[in-house]
Amino acid sequence: MSNPTAAMLVIGDEILSGRTRDSNTHFLAGQLTDAGIDMKEVRVVSDDAPAIIAAVQALSAAYTYVFTSGGIGPTHDDITADCVAAAFDTHIDVRDDARALLAAFYANTGRELNDARLRMARIPDGAALIENPVSVAPGFKIGNVHVMAGVPSVFCAMVASILPTLTGGAPLLSQSLRVVRGEGDIAAPLGAFAKRHPTLSVGCYPFQDNGIYGANVVVRGQDRAVLDSAMVDLSALFPA
Amino acid sequence: MSNPTAAMLVIGDEILSGRTRDSNTHFLAGQLTDAGIDMKEVRVVSDDAPAIIAAVQALSAAYTYVFTSGGIGPTHDDITADCVAAAFDTHIDVRDDARALLAAFYANTGRELNDARLRMARIPDGAALIENPVSVAPGFKIGNVHVMAGVPSVFCAMVASILPTLTGGAPLLSQSLRVVRGEGDIAAPLGAFAKRHPTLSVGCYPFQDNGIYGANVVVRGQDRAVLDSAMVDLSALFPA
Repeated sequence: MSNPTAAMLVIGDEILSGRTRDSNTHFLAGQLTDAGIDMKEVRVVSDDAPAIIAAVQALSAAYTYVFTSGGIGPTHDDITADCVAAAFDTHIDVRDDARALLAAFYANTGRELNDARLRMARIPDGAALIENPVSVAPGFKIGNVHVMAGVPSVFCAMVASILPTLTGGAPLLSQSLRVVRGEGDIAAPLGAFAKRHPTLSVGCYPFQDNGIYGANVVVRGQDRAVLDSAMVDLSALFPA
Repeated sequence: MSNPTAAMLVIGDEILSGRTRDSNTHFLAGQLTDAGIDMKEVRVVSDDAPAIIAAVQALSAAYTYVFTSGGIGPTHDDITADCVAAAFDTHIDVRDDARALLAAFYANTGRELNDARLRMARIPDGAALIENPVSVAPGFKIGNVHVMAGVPSVFCAMVASILPTLTGGAPLLSQSLRVVRGEGDIAAPLGAFAKRHPTLSVGCYPFQDNGIYGANVVVRGQDRAVLDSAMVDLSALFPA
């Protein structure tokens, strides 16, 4: 049986302009792989409502799970929540449960729960809140879309809180062999190897290290015995 | 007049599984911003022919320029060139000009130009080669799509060789102000500021530094005088 699939949608001009380097995708990719969920696609779009709505709809229709990052803060450029509501054709407004979380937090810190901060309590009808143990303002889940913050510490904490709610598959196991021969020299036997092991995915990632050409061959699959037996085959093919 | 637009397409299972962290997107984003080309979208897809073909066609139709990264090496999982040819419904085979480059290179290094390495000379009909000063095997340009290697040193070198061939717009200028107040406190005046300066894009990126809450306000635009005058307005709004 094949694993559930996933897509990541990163929202933010700052990524596309090169101002900020996205780190959430790489973090999520590793977490999903460990959970047996296959990340199939990533998109990055700008703070532009039609672009966000179209991407949410396309990814939500194509994959088991969608995860978004960015655009749920208090400022005018934070439009993700409204766009996700629009993508699901759902009403959105400040919701009492989210407002209560924020009210308690700001009362404790002596800061004002003003209109801007209240925007972070805008949650689409029917969505479930995603806990934010870092800075309280929640994410939410609607349909198969998980809407999370862009700030990496908050994103990671939110991922930790939703991971137990996801249905994973067999974790993708991975083994690799470092081969100190040019990628072009090993390509033909490696292609035949990949054909001999059709249930495994075989990747070849070249490196150059002080003038030495080589490649890391990475073999991935869900069945440990099949993977182990393939690695014996691979080692015989490319003895050290 | 608005700037030319661009999209990046990263191809590779190793990015989606979390094995490898993509750095090419961030590099290209900065280069394009400096050149006055607006990166509008990024996609990452797996080594899967239908996914690659669909993404190439969608991005090529939507943006002025498309740049791809990954999947043009000698091994069985390197299918980008064939997929791009399919996306343009164009014939592809080993081409004499690319073969000549590889033949000269491998003759010099004493390595064999075997069938696997010859795959790197597969170039769609009508495509122009993109120089690879690092490891010779060329990229190519067909239509508005620039097909480049995934290895970062090669990708960066290829970008350097194509940048002079692109028509840029007015470079996006950027200025920022560090405001040591919570993002929720500055959101309302910042929203009004953004409305007062409709030709500029105004982003707000919160930080937390030893318990101090603040935000970097980044203002971007193409006209230096307009940007300078807006920064005077912004500084008055949030005095140090």
